[in-house]
Order: sequence, then structure tokens, then C-alpha cells
Amino acid sequence: MDIKKKSIKELETLCQEIREKILKVVSKNGGHLSSTLGATELIVAMHKVFDSAKDPFIFDVSHQSYAHKLLTDRWDPFESLRTFGGISGYTKPSESEHDYFVAGHSSTSISLGVGAAKAIALKGEQESRIPVVMIGDGSMTAGMVYEALNELGERKYPMVIILNDNEMSIAKPIGAVSRMLSSAMASPFYQRFKKHTENFVDNFGEGARYIAKRMEESLKLVTPGIMFEEMGIDYIGPVDGHNLSQLIDIFETAKGMKKPVIIHAQTIKGKGYEIAEGHEEKWHGVGPFDINSGEGAKKSVSKSATQIYTEALMALADKDEKIVGVTAAMPSGTGLTPLMEKYPERFWDVAIAEQHAVTSMAALAKEGFKPFCTIYSTFLQRAYDQVIHDTCLMDLPVVFALDRAGIVGEDGETHQGVFDVSFLRAIPNMTLFAPRDEKSLHQAMGFAASYRHPCSLRYPRGGFIETEGLAESQPFELAKSQLLQTSEGDTLFIGYGNGVGRAYQTAKYLDQGVALLDLRFVKPLDVEMLSHLAKKHKKWFIFSDTAKMGGVASAITEFLQEQNLHDIKLVSFEYEDSFITHGNTKLVEESLGLLPQQLAKKVQERL
Amino acid sequence: MDIKKKSIKELETLCQEIREKILKVVSKNGGHLSSTLGATELIVAMHKVFDSAKDPFIFDVSHQSYAHKLLTDRWDPFESLRTFGGISGYTKPSESEHDYFVAGHSSTSISLGVGAAKAIALKGEQESRIPVVMIGDGSMTAGMVYEALNELGERKYPMVIILNDNEMSIAKPIGAVSRMLSSAMASPFYQRFKKHTENFVDNFGEGARYIAKRMEESLKLVTPGIMFEEMGIDYIGPVDGHNLSQLIDIFETAKGMKKPVIIHAQTIKGKGYEIAEGHEEKWHGVGPFDINSGEGAKKSVSKSATQIYTEALMALADKDEKIVGVTAAMPSGTGLTPLMEKYPERFWDVAIAEQHAVTSMAALAKEGFKPFCTIYSTFLQRAYDQVIHDTCLMDLPVVFALDRAGIVGEDGETHQGVFDVSFLRAIPNMTLFAPRDEKSLHQAMGFAASYRHPCSLRYPRGGFIETEGLAESQPFELAKSQLLQTSEGDTLFIGYGNGVGRAYQTAKYLDQGVALLDLRFVKPLDVEMLSHLAKKHKKWFIFSDTAKMGGVASAITEFLQEQNLHDIKLVSFEYEDSFITHGNTKLVEESLGLLPQQLAKKVQERL
Repeated sequence: MDIKKKSIKELETLCQEIREKILKVVSKNGGHLSSTLGATELIVAMHKVFDSAKDPFIFDVSHQSYAHKLLTDRWDPFESLRTFGGISGYTKPSESEHDYFVAGHSSTSISLGVGAAKAIALKGEQESRIPVVMIGDGSMTAGMVYEALNELGERKYPMVIILNDNEMSIAKPIGAVSRMLSSAMASPFYQRFKKHTENFVDNFGEGARYIAKRMEESLKLVTPGIMFEEMGIDYIGPVDGHNLSQLIDIFETAKGMKKPVIIHAQTIKGKGYEIAEGHEEKWHGVGPFDINSGEGAKKSVSKSATQIYTEALMALADKDEKIVGVTAAMPSGTGLTPLMEKYPERFWDVAIAEQHAVTSMAALAKEGFKPFCTIYSTFLQRAYDQVIHDTCLMDLPVVFALDRAGIVGEDGETHQGVFDVSFLRAIPNMTLFAPRDEKSLHQAMGFAASYRHPCSLRYPRGGFIETEGLAESQPFELAKSQLLQTSEGDTLFIGYGNGVGRAYQTAKYLDQGVALLDLRFVKPLDVEMLSHLAKKHKKWFIFSDTAKMGGVASAITEFLQEQNLHDIKLVSFEYEDSFITHGNTKLVEESLGLLPQQLAKKVQERL
Repeated sequence: MDIKKKSIKELETLCQEIREKILKVVSKNGGHLSSTLGATELIVAMHKVFDSAKDPFIFDVSHQSYAHKLLTDRWDPFESLRTFGGISGYTKPSESEHDYFVAGHSSTSISLGVGAAKAIALKGEQESRIPVVMIGDGSMTAGMVYEALNELGERKYPMVIILNDNEMSIAKPIGAVSRMLSSAMASPFYQRFKKHTENFVDNFGEGARYIAKRMEESLKLVTPGIMFEEMGIDYIGPVDGHNLSQLIDIFETAKGMKKPVIIHAQTIKGKGYEIAEGHEEKWHGVGPFDINSGEGAKKSVSKSATQIYTEALMALADKDEKIVGVTAAMPSGTGLTPLMEKYPERFWDVAIAEQHAVTSMAALAKEGFKPFCTIYSTFLQRAYDQVIHDTCLMDLPVVFALDRAGIVGEDGETHQGVFDVSFLRAIPNMTLFAPRDEKSLHQAMGFAASYRHPCSLRYPRGGFIETEGLAESQPFELAKSQLLQTSEGDTLFIGYGNGVGRAYQTAKYLDQGVALLDLRFVKPLDVEMLSHLAKKHKKWFIFSDTAKMGGVASAITEFLQEQNLHDIKLVSFEYEDSFITHGNTKLVEESLGLLPQQLAKKVQERL
């Protein structure tokens, strides 16, 4: 559709249609709802003023970009949002040339904008192209944003940054920017400045905002954007993020300024869907729901690993006041909310700031506390050096509890929790283990709480794979595996974490018995048990929701070489060396050949 | 020594003695000179006012902490600075209880301070303990600082942050804080404010600074610390960082405030050693030198890998204007200075900001440029997610040139470049290779420049191990190794990067011939060559300056298992699973049993 020619009235109608479409699809497929509803006018105005075919449109985290997808040739395909083989819930260049970058982790957008601006300058395209960045207030806490703003303010590349301020990140935001933004809205100054902006921009157009700013300065008022101005970035705002005609005027002004500008737009999260408006965390990311009632579809009855983690940590925290914990802006996702409510002085949400989360916990460990750093596997990638340099080098007893380890389903390639074993195993002083079911997660937590060195446990998104019928889990002991099933045959299944259930389910499809080991510790390995089993079984199959390179089978293979156990044939059922797409977990696993019946066939071929 | 009882005059004499001692030892052993000379009064004042036996003293990067070491029972042992088995060049708790944390990477200090403050609050020790953080202006650019300040300003934990502003990080600093600090010094306001501070603090003591601040605000002047104040942190300064009595007064005031305070102290880098004063990068880290002339000891004649890298990149950049590059505050260390001088529009120093460095280069790659991200192996740990999420997921042709790969010598455990193969190999779309000598580094760079996917090459600190006499290096081709030496015997040496030289030197101590393969690519492996060699040789020895877990031998072992090559006995001569200490590289390697004659003995035992 040619948005450029539409009138304000037509654009307003378009916004309405976009909202209806998003609501319809998300209520059916699940997805990110309230942030994308809130950003509709901003995105329509972006497309009116800029051109996504040439201007780099960079959406931070990009779960708010649904309207952009609808405006760029994906109106009908959008029905397949987040389904296997369908439209991704994030921007994705392979889906459309209008999607500049993949973005599922937050706070990368301004760095990308700076890189794009450098390229545009080198190519001499500054007259015809400009990066347009949209970033939410919640993403402003991560240090990477500040690193990028620092260089941007220094070098003054033309760039338009739309700060989408809906007064909340996923959870309650903290920090200077958030405080500044909310005080801006509350103050009478807001109204006054708004009027200034409107009048000047309306009457004089481009450059008018400068007069307004100078006026304010001459009156020695501290503007809400002083922090950005200090960094060398011009600030416009706050402006009403749902007022299309005003947004279009301001975007035009910003475009003409030929320097870095932050436009502070205030939006209402969930705008246009009354049930979601004003509700914070609940409507950020949702499963399918009924549009009229807002009621979600009935959830599965099986307990999620996150729920079990919460129960286990709560029980430990009740008994031991040295137990503390942290989340980086994911209190609900990581199950930390009940602890923050019950022990507000011992559990912190430090906002999107994984580096700081890890290092501050290291200091608490040094002081004799027992920190549980609760984080998604994929987000620990953002604090890797802090695990090495601040935790393991000091040999401090921080527990890294990695949620969403393995395939995460609809969020897809940016969120898959598959690399943790590979990148953590190489770090000296680190211990790695994994539970396989409810009971063993409780036991693993008990072990973690009493262990005096850095350690990390991992557990899947959703529930564990069913292991009903297997021997009961025994308490965790360092470097001790548990042999769940013996066999006189040649075949040994080794499972790690959720891999135990996968191995067990796979074995059911075989017409012969197999031995089944719950590895439990991938570092250090249970050398004694593995050596023993190497004598009895010569065909080993490794089941684990981890990348194959440097993963669980790799650790075992290293061991076999070191021990000169050369008669073992080992097959790894871990993830191959490619990024894993989004969609229903079962469908994704099927596409990778990782469902139990598929694995059983592969085993059969090798017996 | 009991510094608490000393008079100002005695303390000034002590500062003089400390400087002489540092100068004497560093001129003999090498080390960080100018930052530590500049911080002498600050550290003496810290010890006068606070107590490192109970107050957490947290030195950012900690190369400026020599005076602290001298003041805490290490006056005589300090002679062994940076030598094998001697005093570390950084704070190290295993050396003294007065060293709170290990710190060799920058910008972790405020996070550690926040963690310590949380612990102090939980223990109810706020009346008797307070974290004291010293951080240089150069460290203020990394985002982690901002993440920590955000939480600190929100929670208001009592903490004293001494911002040691010597108007330079290792290289020219950039960004808002740096600009703010230097404008503070230049402005007439500086003099005025200084007078205020002096007068008020002198006459009224504690709390006086508030009056000063309120006065300024009522006059609607924007103070140089406005940015910190906006973040919720009180600001005192600028103050003369060499005026002991004033520093002591201000530290006392700050200690009594019971909230987070930043003291902005201006110091002269190299203070007290005339030859170093005012010289920037040159005197930051030095080798042994003559105190009277300032002349360094004669450098080794062999060309460093960094020098070769510079030559190679310069040659490529001359021919191809699409080649761009970045360093994170290490233009000289990484050899990028000549490129920044010759092509200032194509090579950037983004300050200490590894995350931003990587992600901004990804955007340049997307725009058709060929970025060389030049970084020490150990510092790439700080941008791991940016390699995964922003580069490899997009399959963009960014080159990661990893300097200081392997053992780095005197800097020691925080700086060892040993994990890169382990953490990079698991990332899909990544290609990993390594040159072994001058010619092959040029060829590797040629390959990197033309390769259309993410890739990474690594090279050692200093020169390559001598390989004179080996077959000449051939141009790099994807996944192609080079067989340098054949043998009819059973033994195959496989070298990766500098490991080729190590293998070659080791072979000289053997009384039988061995085949020698330059692996070149650890990802993807040269499957054809390895399969071929597996038929001829059954004893494989792997030489590489990398961590054993998930390292080069691990990759080869994975391959052998996949190919069902079960008759190969493989031994890895990589680094065992522990952090590696500081000292002369040869001595460190000897302690690890990695010198050629030691390796030859180990090989012999297995033949």
C-alpha cells in the first residue's frame, strides 16, 4: 500500500485496521501484544516520513514491529505469525528486505544505527538515507545503549531515534532514564513544553524546535532531555505517541536536522484494546486468548520447570537467609516474582543489565551470601566475561540457574538456549549439571545451595519430558550420575537434563532393552561410572538439548580419548551446527529429527 | 605502617617514597606506570580515611593499585612485581586480604561496589563499612558502568566512588563523561566551583558541599556533574587529586554522607616522573627502562604478530576501500594506530565498549563493507552475545582478529587468551582459522578479506614461535590444512596457529621423524586430509595455545567419532582446566610443561 499518499484521516483508519489485525492474529497465535499495539501510530508515521526500502529501520528487540510487518507486504502472511514456517515474531531480513536486522535481544539498536550511519557516510548517501531507530524505555537500561550513544554524541551522525516510552519495560523499570522519563510526564513543565513544541513546530516547521529549546535554556530550566543533551544528542519531547499528525511533523523536522536526535514519544501500552490498556506485565507476551473476555486458553496441566524452580528456591530461601537472587528484567519469566515479594531485600530486579546482574552477585558471594543468578540461557551470553572474570576467576559460589535451556518454541532463533554448555564448560572452576524432572530439580537446587564454587544448572521452557516409570531421582552429589536402567545389551543411552526424558521416550520405540544413564554432571563427569559402563556397553547414544559442538557428547568424547577407551561408538543427538527456527517446539523438533520415534529409527539403524 | 597516625607532612613524604619505589620496580620489571604514579595521593588518602581490612577497596582494572599494594604489607615483595611467582600487576585476593577482588578487565568496579553495598546492608554493617571504588575516566565508557550506576542511583546505597580523571584512558577517550570532565576543567566555572568546595568544606566540614550545590542550583548553573546527579548520585568536584589534605577532608565528608557519592578528582598521569608526565599512551604500560633517560631496554628483533597484522591490514586497506576496522580503546596494542591515522574515516576507536564495537561493525558489514574487528582474545569475551546475535545469526562477513591469543605473560590470569576457540566454535556460521608465521598471517588476512561469512583468526602476543626450515606457507583456502612434513612412522603432530611452531620445535627433540600438519582451520576442519592421515598415522598429538575443553583436540576428537575412526590415539597439548598465572611466558609455559623439550618427553613416553 502506498502510505505516502494517504491523508491523516486515512492513516488513522489504517491504524485501526492494523490494531484489529494484530489483535485477531495474536489472540489466535499468541505473541507480543501490548507493546506492538502501543507503537502503531509511531510505526505508521515512520513509514509516512521515511522509506524502509532505503532507510535502515531498526527496531530494538523488534517484538513491537508487527505493524511494520503489516505495512511491508506481509498483511496476509501475518496470519502465520510465530508458527512453524510462518512469519517470525521479530524482524528478519530473510523474510523481507524491509527488515534491516534480526533483533530478539534488547538494546542493540543504537549500535546498529551507528554502524549504518557510518556506512551511509562512507557511501556518501547522507542526503538520501538516514537510520531510524525505535527503542522502548525498558531497553534503555542495558549498557550497550550507553556505549553507542557515547560514540553517536561524539561523531554526530544524522540519525532519528524514536524513544517509545510506555512507562514500563516488561517489568517495572529502574534507572536514570526511566526516572527522567516519568518525571517528564508528571511535571507541569511537560504540558508547557508540549505546547511550545506544538506551536513552534506547527507555525515555523523545521528548526523551530531549536528556538523552543534555546528559550527553555535561557530560562535556565532543566529540560527532561538534559541527559541526552549532555551526551551530545538533541532531544525533542515529550510528544504524544498516538497523535499521528504531530508525529509526522516532528519526524519530518528530525529528518531535516542532519544530526542525532532523540524523539521522546509517550504511548499507552495495549492502546486500542481496552482489556490490555494499563495492565503491565500480563499483556506483554501472551498465549492465545478470547478477544471479548481477555481470557487465555486453558493452560497445560503439567508443571513448568520455572514453577518448580520457584518452589525449590522459595523453600531454600525460607530456610537460609544467605540465599539471595537476581533477575535482569524477567521477574515473571524466570519465576522470581514471589521471591521479590516475600524477600524484597534479598531479591533484585536490576533491569535489562545482565553484566551488572552477574558481577554484583559475585560481590555478594564474596561477602558470604549465596546468590542465584536466574536468567535465560540465551541471555547469559550477554554476561559471559562477567562469568569468567568476576565469578570463576574468583572461584565464588554463584549459582547460574538457566531457564529456557534448549528449544524455546515460538520466539525462535534469537532465543534458543543451546550454547550454554559449550561456552561455560571451558571456564575453570565452573561446575555444570542438569535436572530431569520435578524431584531432581528440587535436589539439584539443594546441591547448588550448598556448593561452594561457581555452578550452573539448566532446565527447559515449559515442562520436562515425561519420565513416569523411571527410577526415582536420588540426591545430587558432585560428579555423580544416576544409572536408571541396566541392560545386558550393547547399547547405552546417556541423557543430560531434559535429554533423559527424550532418551527414555526413545527407548520405548525400540524392541530391545538399553541401559539408561542420567548423566547429571557434564562437568565434572562421573569418570568412575562412565569407565564402568564403557566395559559393558560399546554403543553409546547421547541425548541432550544442547549444541553438538563443544556440547555433552563432546565432553564425553574427550573423556573417552583421555582414558584410551577406543572401542566405544558414540552418537550425539544434540543440535547440529545451525540456528534453529521458530514455531511450535514439537514441529521444530520434528524438522530436526529429534522426536523420540525419529530418534528410535536412527538408533535402530546403528544397532 | 600505621598510616592513620601520620601527619599530612609525613603522608606527603610517604607519597614521595611510594613513587620512588614504583619507579624503581617498574623500570626494572616493566608494568603500568603513569596511571599508578598519578593515583598515589588518592590511594594514600583512601587509606587514611577508610580501612581496607574491612571496607571493600575496589580498584577498576586495578593496574593503578600499586600504591595500595605497597601500603598493605607488600613493600618488599613488590620487587617481584609481575614476575613468575611474584606479586601480580593487579589486585588479587589470594595475595592479600586487602585486595577485595581480581580485576584486570575494566569497568566492573561499580557493579562490585553495588554488590558489596547490598551485602553490607543485609548484614547490618552500614555504620561500620562502606565500599570505596576507584575508577579512571577511561573506564567510564563501558556500558556495564552505566548499568551499575542506574541501580545505585535508584537504591542509594552508601558508596564512595573516586573518579580518577587524568584526562585520558589508555588512548584518547570519547563520550559524554569524558567531554563533561574535560569541559569541567577548562571552564572558568571550574575555578569558581573549586573555590566553593574548598571554602565550604574547610569551614563547615560535612554537609557543606550541599550548601554549595544548592547555591549553584539556585543560580541555575549546570554543574559539571549534572549527569551523575540525574542518575541519582551525588557529585563532588572537580578536586585536585594531588592535594592530600583536601582529599582527606573530602573523603571524610563523602564517608559521612551515607549515600552514593562520586568524587571527581583531577590527576596528572605520570605525576612525579617528569619524563612520563604529559605523555599519553606511551607511558601507560611499559617494559623495563632507564630511569634517567627514559629509554627502554632494547626490544627483541623478531617482529611481533601485531606488527605483521598491521602491515597486512594496511596493505589490504590500501587496495580495498570497503575495508574498515574498529578497536575498543586499544589502537596501539592492537596495531590499529597507523590505520586510524591514514584512514581516519574508515577506522574507529569506540573507547572501551566491546559490545558496541562488534554490533556497529555488523551493521557496516550489512551495508557491504568488510569490517576487521581487532580485539584481544580475552576482551572478545565481553561481546560474546554480539558475535552470536548480531553477527553470526545474520551471517555477516565481520572478521574478528584476535590478538594476544594464548599465554600473554606478565598480565596474567585476567588476560590469558585461551577460551576463544571453545566459545566461538559452537556458533553457527562462524569460521575459525589461525596463521603460524609472518607469511601465513598475510595469507590468512587475504583469505579473511575475501570471505563472505563471519570468521575469526587468532595470533599470539609477541612473535610467532620460530618455524625456520619448514615448508613455506601456501595461500589460505577454506577448510584446507597444509601438510608440512610427511613421515612413514605412526606419529602425527597437528599444530594450530602458534602450535605449529611448538610442534615443530618439539619434533626436533625426538629421535624419530613425525608427520606435521598445519591444521589452519579448526572450523570447518579439513575432513579430507584428516581422514587421509587417519589411515597412515595412529598416534596424533595436538599442539595449540587454547583451552583443552572444547578446544582444538576436542574438535578433532568429535570428528574422529563421527567418522568412526576408532583406532586413533590422540593426545592434546593444550591448556588444562585452570586459570593460568602471570610471569614471563617461558617460565609460565615451563610450569605447565609446555616447552618443546618437555613436550618431547611426554611424546616419547607415549610412542
